[in-house]
Amino acid sequence: MGSAAVDIPHPFDPLTLGEIDTAISIVKKAHGDIFFNVVSLQEPRKAEMTAWLADPDTAPRPKRVAEVVVIAPGGKVYDGLVDLAETKITKWDFLDGEQPIITMEELQLVEHIVRKDPRVIEQCVISGIAPEDMDKVYCDPWTIGYDERFGSTVRLQQALMYYRPDIDNCQYQYPLDFCPIYDADKGEIVAIDIPKVRRPLSQAPALDYHPAAVEKRGGYRTDLKPINITQPEGVSFRMAGREIAWQNWNFHIGFNYREGIILNNITFNDKGTVRPIFYRLSLAEMVVPYGNPEHPHHRKHALDQGEYGAGYMANSLSLGCDCKGAIHYLDAHFPTRAGGLRTIENAICIHEEDAGILFKHTDFRDDSVIVTRGRKLVIQQIFTAANYEYVVAWIFHQDGTIQPEIKLTGILNTYAMDPDEDTRGWGTQVYPGVNAHNHQHLFCLRVDANVDGPDNTVFVSDAVPSDAPVGSPENYYGNGFYNRRTKLATTGEAATDYSGATSRTWEIANTNRLNPFSRKPVSYKLVSREVPGLLPKEGSLVWKRAPFARHAVHVTPYKDDQLYPAGTHVPQTSGDTPLGLEAWIGAGKESVDNTDVVLWHTFGLTHFPSPEDFPVMPAEPMTLLLRPRNFFAGNPVMDVPPSFVRVPSQVLKEEREGGEMGMENGGGCWEGVVRDGVSRLAFSGEGQGEGEGERNGGCCKR
Amino acid sequence: MGSAAVDIPHPFDPLTLGEIDTAISIVKKAHGDIFFNVVSLQEPRKAEMTAWLADPDTAPRPKRVAEVVVIAPGGKVYDGLVDLAETKITKWDFLDGEQPIITMEELQLVEHIVRKDPRVIEQCVISGIAPEDMDKVYCDPWTIGYDERFGSTVRLQQALMYYRPDIDNCQYQYPLDFCPIYDADKGEIVAIDIPKVRRPLSQAPALDYHPAAVEKRGGYRTDLKPINITQPEGVSFRMAGREIAWQNWNFHIGFNYREGIILNNITFNDKGTVRPIFYRLSLAEMVVPYGNPEHPHHRKHALDQGEYGAGYMANSLSLGCDCKGAIHYLDAHFPTRAGGLRTIENAICIHEEDAGILFKHTDFRDDSVIVTRGRKLVIQQIFTAANYEYVVAWIFHQDGTIQPEIKLTGILNTYAMDPDEDTRGWGTQVYPGVNAHNHQHLFCLRVDANVDGPDNTVFVSDAVPSDAPVGSPENYYGNGFYNRRTKLATTGEAATDYSGATSRTWEIANTNRLNPFSRKPVSYKLVSREVPGLLPKEGSLVWKRAPFARHAVHVTPYKDDQLYPAGTHVPQTSGDTPLGLEAWIGAGKESVDNTDVVLWHTFGLTHFPSPEDFPVMPAEPMTLLLRPRNFFAGNPVMDVPPSFVRVPSQVLKEEREGGEMGMENGGGCWEGVVRDGVSRLAFSGEGQGEGEGERNGGCCKR
Repeated sequence: MGSAAVDIPHPFDPLTLGEIDTAISIVKKAHGDIFFNVVSLQEPRKAEMTAWLADPDTAPRPKRVAEVVVIAPGGKVYDGLVDLAETKITKWDFLDGEQPIITMEELQLVEHIVRKDPRVIEQCVISGIAPEDMDKVYCDPWTIGYDERFGSTVRLQQALMYYRPDIDNCQYQYPLDFCPIYDADKGEIVAIDIPKVRRPLSQAPALDYHPAAVEKRGGYRTDLKPINITQPEGVSFRMAGREIAWQNWNFHIGFNYREGIILNNITFNDKGTVRPIFYRLSLAEMVVPYGNPEHPHHRKHALDQGEYGAGYMANSLSLGCDCKGAIHYLDAHFPTRAGGLRTIENAICIHEEDAGILFKHTDFRDDSVIVTRGRKLVIQQIFTAANYEYVVAWIFHQDGTIQPEIKLTGILNTYAMDPDEDTRGWGTQVYPGVNAHNHQHLFCLRVDANVDGPDNTVFVSDAVPSDAPVGSPENYYGNGFYNRRTKLATTGEAATDYSGATSRTWEIANTNRLNPFSRKPVSYKLVSREVPGLLPKEGSLVWKRAPFARHAVHVTPYKDDQLYPAGTHVPQTSGDTPLGLEAWIGAGKESVDNTDVVLWHTFGLTHFPSPEDFPVMPAEPMTLLLRPRNFFAGNPVMDVPPSFVRVPSQVLKEEREGGEMGMENGGGCWEGVVRDGVSRLAFSGEGQGEGEGERNGGCCKR
Repeated sequence: MGSAAVDIPHPFDPLTLGEIDTAISIVKKAHGDIFFNVVSLQEPRKAEMTAWLADPDTAPRPKRVAEVVVIAPGGKVYDGLVDLAETKITKWDFLDGEQPIITMEELQLVEHIVRKDPRVIEQCVISGIAPEDMDKVYCDPWTIGYDERFGSTVRLQQALMYYRPDIDNCQYQYPLDFCPIYDADKGEIVAIDIPKVRRPLSQAPALDYHPAAVEKRGGYRTDLKPINITQPEGVSFRMAGREIAWQNWNFHIGFNYREGIILNNITFNDKGTVRPIFYRLSLAEMVVPYGNPEHPHHRKHALDQGEYGAGYMANSLSLGCDCKGAIHYLDAHFPTRAGGLRTIENAICIHEEDAGILFKHTDFRDDSVIVTRGRKLVIQQIFTAANYEYVVAWIFHQDGTIQPEIKLTGILNTYAMDPDEDTRGWGTQVYPGVNAHNHQHLFCLRVDANVDGPDNTVFVSDAVPSDAPVGSPENYYGNGFYNRRTKLATTGEAATDYSGATSRTWEIANTNRLNPFSRKPVSYKLVSREVPGLLPKEGSLVWKRAPFARHAVHVTPYKDDQLYPAGTHVPQTSGDTPLGLEAWIGAGKESVDNTDVVLWHTFGLTHFPSPEDFPVMPAEPMTLLLRPRNFFAGNPVMDVPPSFVRVPSQVLKEEREGGEMGMENGGGCWEGVVRDGVSRLAFSGEGQGEGEGERNGGCCKR
């Protein structure tokens, strides 16, 4: 049995090492040696959880239950639940023809098999690699996705093949043109997809980003001076376990193998009233479809979270590299395949950043001014999905805005091409012999809404001109325009697409509560502009397997266990049977009007690679906002101390008392203003030492 | 005559104080006492300028010429040029029926007149204001825009009226319901627009953001700990006059009364080759149409740059408030109305910021990793257009991306409403008695392209599915998609709208130069997602006066003096005669294929106010990117020193030498890595002092 936790975990806390160990022991005892794919917290049942949150002293504490997914000998997959308090298995279902998530350990195995397989060696030789160089052959194993030749009963991976002549080379510059298929149960290569036209190994010189290569090209640039970010008085947030309090925000930071960061019970203290906003926020799924229709590239579409897990693939983060300033880290704990324990240290980093100007206004009459700087809180993780890295940040602003932000970096997935080959528009030659295929990154944000309570309604909100023509009495000068709001009353109606032409947003409203001034329902608005839509066609394999990507927004009534919009067990689904969102929505008749709703938002970008992206990509950010609209009865950040303020009465007083000096004499910070004593002129002629006091600095000098 | 400049100005430099003074003296000598609206650098003729830039030692230096716009007695407007070297007037045109830009001094006059006007006092009394309280009556004077009752020969302002019972109150919470019209030539109120239904002065208590009001509500929050940003070794950029060199970038920073910041001759040093990218970037115009069609609100549409000037309205910026860190400032010099000189100190701030992760990749096999932090350079100004503030930042990234960013803050323009009045969808009651009308902020980015030389071509770029149906041999699995590029060959074809459905971007390409790997034309791509389109209808007054806002993109062949897309003299244009872009484009037959082109991009947002925005708005950002695509032959930032790197060969060595320790022993920074010695754990139990060395910090510890 594992070590006992000193504190009782919060019901939203991920399973502790001890709890994981307990669950494993119970399962092993009942079922013997077995491979563990998942041992993870079952989300507390919402009814129990909300009762407990409302009254933690009296209401029953929600049970700690472990979801367990295992692969038993013979490739038999079981999906179970373990009640941790009662130390018993309460569910144990055999999954017939379903494949659970692929763990990092399963992925790691394939390369060793591939290197020894005679048929693979034969193909490598055809490509131009000597048999004794097989240690320089690498593969990125992906789930096969779906291939109708094999179906879903055999657990398969496809091995995307590369050659790496030097261990420090960027592997993706020497892709090989064939694709072995690995049977996980047999532990062997069962097929190789070989293209009709062969492409021998590229002979281009290596283009690398590692230090020795950079040194060879002339070395690193030496003209970047350090920017230091320090918080001498510490951070402005407090942690109680995994609950964070920062400014008016309060929420719980969870983490699981699949979604990575999970934010629960997000509330905002509105002048003493703690108002619920979201019950749960997470990235619930993603899909990266590639746009080359030639066999077998159609299989390249990664549902990375369901297939590999944003938690399982999380990086261990380091100070001053992944984040700067004063950082708090949280670890992540998982089972190993054999039933041991593993910890990803520093899987989550939490820190504050200066956010630029929060608000400012100058009166043009007298130059009286207020300027207040903003602050943001960032909850961040990074995960590596083979070639790509995803930097996922949940940014909280003081004004009530939540801003999920994703940065893409890492390396393009690549395929071999001949020097004179036409990519036919399906990809770009980013380097000689390297074809990077068109692809999309589509993420599904799951918003379990709780805007002033669970009963919410989603409206689509469009900016449209007045219907009345120019010259008509209602719109004589033609300038009339308004906000057209359309209620999404059923799950069917709620399947909606983005409209750039109308600057479409979606409002998550509580129609039971009106703003006292605007008399509109209190709401949070989803403002998202990177909404490309799924490019694989209706009826395509990707379209079938990733139902969440068919529309920008879906809305469903909340149900326990409806967490994963492409289904619970994603590898090797065909999509022929409705899965996830498609299954839940069905005929689309269910009401989502004034009830506990979940909004699913698919956003992302379409990437047509170019040589700038190679051999490693400068980070490309995308972001969206969840903004309070008609939620507060006024600007909620007026209590943030200003950096500089000079009110009209001061200007007047100075003018009267200062005579000729007028307003040019500057000066006059309001008492209590937050002075920045460390900013300096760039070329003041003096060293910009730290802690120099306010000489040449300070906010009162202009 | 003015003081002689010590240094010869760069041809792109704004006029010096001495040059402004010279121009004024010459004009005064020739034309007597006169009001000066504009004394500003005439842009160097491009042919002369490019010849000089190519060969500054031999080619003739472009002339310094002042553009002068004056109002002579009787309201007569003249538009002239003064050759500063030859000290002579080379052009002096009478403008019949055109109104030049309104200066801050002209705006300031109106309030004094309004307060004394008996008919205005009468209306104030009707609103409920005692005649002895007229010193508490304020107005925001706007150009009338266009009103067919008055035409454009009389210089007019409309006075948006407010009551401010306490000088420190937010003025916009007590709007008055009538609108006096001011004749600048007569210096008096010539009409008052009075609504049919009267709205007496609001009796709501004041809601203020000034410190005394915040103190009364309980005071400022005290839980924000300082974040200090310091550059102990100084900044990483160099200035030579107004030319800046930073990383591989080099450009000139200009400024004028109208566009504010102007960036000229932007080049990127690509491994020793200085490659031109943009000849000139600026915000050339903007329009803020309001959406209430009721008289006289249809007149509320501010073409702020042409009507008042983003330079004239610039804030004087202060250290640690508007920017943090090590800041370099540039001043702006303008004439006064009477022919004196005025300086806005610190009109531009220039500084660097940490930009988060520039690139990162981890090999999942061995946890070998590289993480490199990015840096950005920010050239920023802020201008106050009566109620609103616009924070305009030109952000340069190391990877060749230029990111114009605008933040909106300040205060909503408001109008009076009765407590029970229906806003009819044209506005929102943001506070009792305060109706904030729907509006848009549309900005016109002028991109004078120079991508590897002046001959450029613009393509519209859409992400579209393969035409072949699912199941067809060409697209069997339905996943095919590609980048459809459409050449915009003429000015008519180039008038194009945004398409969210196809993630539309625009490529500014040099078709004469192909990327060596992708074999696609070198290009810069305009990636812009906040592109709402003009909501006032076709044929509306706004549509006529702001031709740039009719489409997201226009392209014109470069011509000297085609700078301002809503016309040169904007106040009181009717739009009935083609102006600016509309006049230049005409029938749309002119070629923009492989020639010196200018791209005009209109972007922005639509704002349906809500109480959160009142009485002062938390800043709302919008941004776009100009990104190199197929421009470089590889990632251009591989020479930025990494924060952490551990290559596979190191991991292998550690595994071999460290035996059981394996990769868990961490450590092993590559020599020469840039260490961040100041980042700290948030709750390390030790004071996070500055300069503590690398205890608990440094990038090598995980």
